Amino acid sequence: MSTLLGNEIHVFLVGPGGVGKELLHQIQETKPEIRVVGLGNSRFMHFDPNGIDLDSWETLIADEPMSLDGFIERMVSLHLDNSVFVDCTSSEAVAATYATILQSHISVVTPNKKANSGPFSTYLELQNLSEDVKFLYDANVGAGLPIIHTIQTLRRAGDQVIKIEAILSGTLSYLFNTYDGSLPFSTIVRHAQRKGYTEPDPSEDLNGMDMARKFLILAREAGYALERSDIDILPFLPESCFDAPTVEEFYQRLADYDEQLSYLVKDAADKGAKYRFIGTLEDGRATLSLKAIGPDHPFYHISGTDNIAAITSRNYPKSPVVIKGPGAGATVTAAAVLANIVQN
Amino acid sequence: MSTLLGNEIHVFLVGPGGVGKELLHQIQETKPEIRVVGLGNSRFMHFDPNGIDLDSWETLIADEPMSLDGFIERMVSLHLDNSVFVDCTSSEAVAATYATILQSHISVVTPNKKANSGPFSTYLELQNLSEDVKFLYDANVGAGLPIIHTIQTLRRAGDQVIKIEAILSGTLSYLFNTYDGSLPFSTIVRHAQRKGYTEPDPSEDLNGMDMARKFLILAREAGYALERSDIDILPFLPESCFDAPTVEEFYQRLADYDEQLSYLVKDAADKGAKYRFIGTLEDGRATLSLKAIGPDHPFYHISGTDNIAAITSRNYPKSPVVIKGPGAGATVTAAAVLANIVQN
Repeated sequence: MSTLLGNEIHVFLVGPGGVGKELLHQIQETKPEIRVVGLGNSRFMHFDPNGIDLDSWETLIADEPMSLDGFIERMVSLHLDNSVFVDCTSSEAVAATYATILQSHISVVTPNKKANSGPFSTYLELQNLSEDVKFLYDANVGAGLPIIHTIQTLRRAGDQVIKIEAILSGTLSYLFNTYDGSLPFSTIVRHAQRKGYTEPDPSEDLNGMDMARKFLILAREAGYALERSDIDILPFLPESCFDAPTVEEFYQRLADYDEQLSYLVKDAADKGAKYRFIGTLEDGRATLSLKAIGPDHPFYHISGTDNIAAITSRNYPKSPVVIKGPGAGATVTAAAVLANIVQN
Repeated sequence: MSTLLGNEIHVFLVGPGGVGKELLHQIQETKPEIRVVGLGNSRFMHFDPNGIDLDSWETLIADEPMSLDGFIERMVSLHLDNSVFVDCTSSEAVAATYATILQSHISVVTPNKKANSGPFSTYLELQNLSEDVKFLYDANVGAGLPIIHTIQTLRRAGDQVIKIEAILSGTLSYLFNTYDGSLPFSTIVRHAQRKGYTEPDPSEDLNGMDMARKFLILAREAGYALERSDIDILPFLPESCFDAPTVEEFYQRLADYDEQLSYLVKDAADKGAKYRFIGTLEDGRATLSLKAIGPDHPFYHISGTDNIAAITSRNYPKSPVVIKGPGAGATVTAAAVLANIVQN
């Protein structure tokens, strides 16, 4: 990528929280060629064209009040070669600035899914702006797993994606990899929450919305002009679970469903099958649903919180390309962002 | 990659055999921006700076007698922007020209493993020459599977590879995925040969040498300065099988070993394990050997001729990144070469 060649890369980072903080740590440890020139959090921002001292960025950042427009103006006005805007927020407002930034000849690298899972017109606009400067977002799906990369590489060589199956939620992966009907499902969810595998409100994982956003991005990368509303989510829990006013009430309502789920899972087991919550793209239609799969299916044998994707294409018609591994976490997400920053 | 930017890419291809022929087909079908300017096989070569008509390259190529030096001289003297030398031979002599070509500011893309699995000094020299112009060889291992890419991406972000396990031979994968001791092993090998899964002399697959070359490349990509002689191959067949004077004699000697292998595999099955021929890189040591693995191992459940690699790193310490799928064949190999040609 021409703009990122040369010795020094100038990074402008917004959102030095979990992933962003880990990214700054990884830059400091391994990348002397990267100068972090601008830093902004929700309250403050700080710039230093000579590079911010990463030993004390947490103090230095409290320099000026943060304003997103001000941050971008300053970044653009510095006119530094090999500038990269890195968005480690999950903000829609920040995502809405990418087009302007790319038009200012500054690359954008982000794990933030908001832009790519918004309207298709936005996705397309950003794709079209990614030429001399780059818009790179490998960490949008599966963190450091080469899922987006693989789809892009197949298509770059003229291949056509025929089918994608994927489990893109560590939480949903864990729940169905662990649940065999012996303990109540609601208990398994409580265990997952205690292990830190769920959002503070687990219903946010169980409704499949986050996975749907990731799956939408994969479908678009595969060449399908889908909108978020085109992804059919077939929930495996009754609607009542999702409008519970409190987390405790959610668990109560979930428990009412334990017996039914247990019957379903044990019945599948009798037939040699297991349930997995799977995103499926086929014939241009994208669906997320609970599926009973047998031992021949590549998703039958996964365990823990692993993500997995199986890509069938014209060149891979019978046995798909399968990619599996941990698909979340600050370390691997930050590493994926860093790989995109130094990509050449 | 700066040299491959711009509208047109000028390809100089040697070796329009299986993979090379398929590559020309894929270029013709999907890549109007690629002009094939030079073509050479073992006997002839042909150049056309305006682009060789790919409908009739098989006739046009019989233009001048082939000389490797002459081919390279002509390519260099044409001074075309975005020139890429594509080596689809398996020749050592062609591999020996890459350094000169890269020094002439022409990128090199190849599925030919000879250079990267030769002396480490050669590997290192080519890595160092890959800057403004690129030396790209994703198809060296696993054809279109993103195995080399994943190791490179992890390391680019400062990660350290701790362990690699891999099955990089479709033949050896098939044999042990299929063999359960009920039919004699020598019969399974005959079946594999009949299905076209082996070399004309199957002992060339069973000696593990080809897989060792691929595994050596992975070890080098992971940062280990290993030579071919550092890869320990623990053969699973007696030496006598490998110096058989004819293929029929090889099968005779293999059959003498059927009972012993059957005992081994059935004994493992009694303990819930299966044998797989696996390359293992750990603590800087690389070994290829038959290993008994249990159902928790990601290689237990593979089938057919799939390749598979599991990469454990500092960032992926517990659950490795696993990549699986068809790892050979003209279509997927040519597509991987094409993706490297148009890589930006």
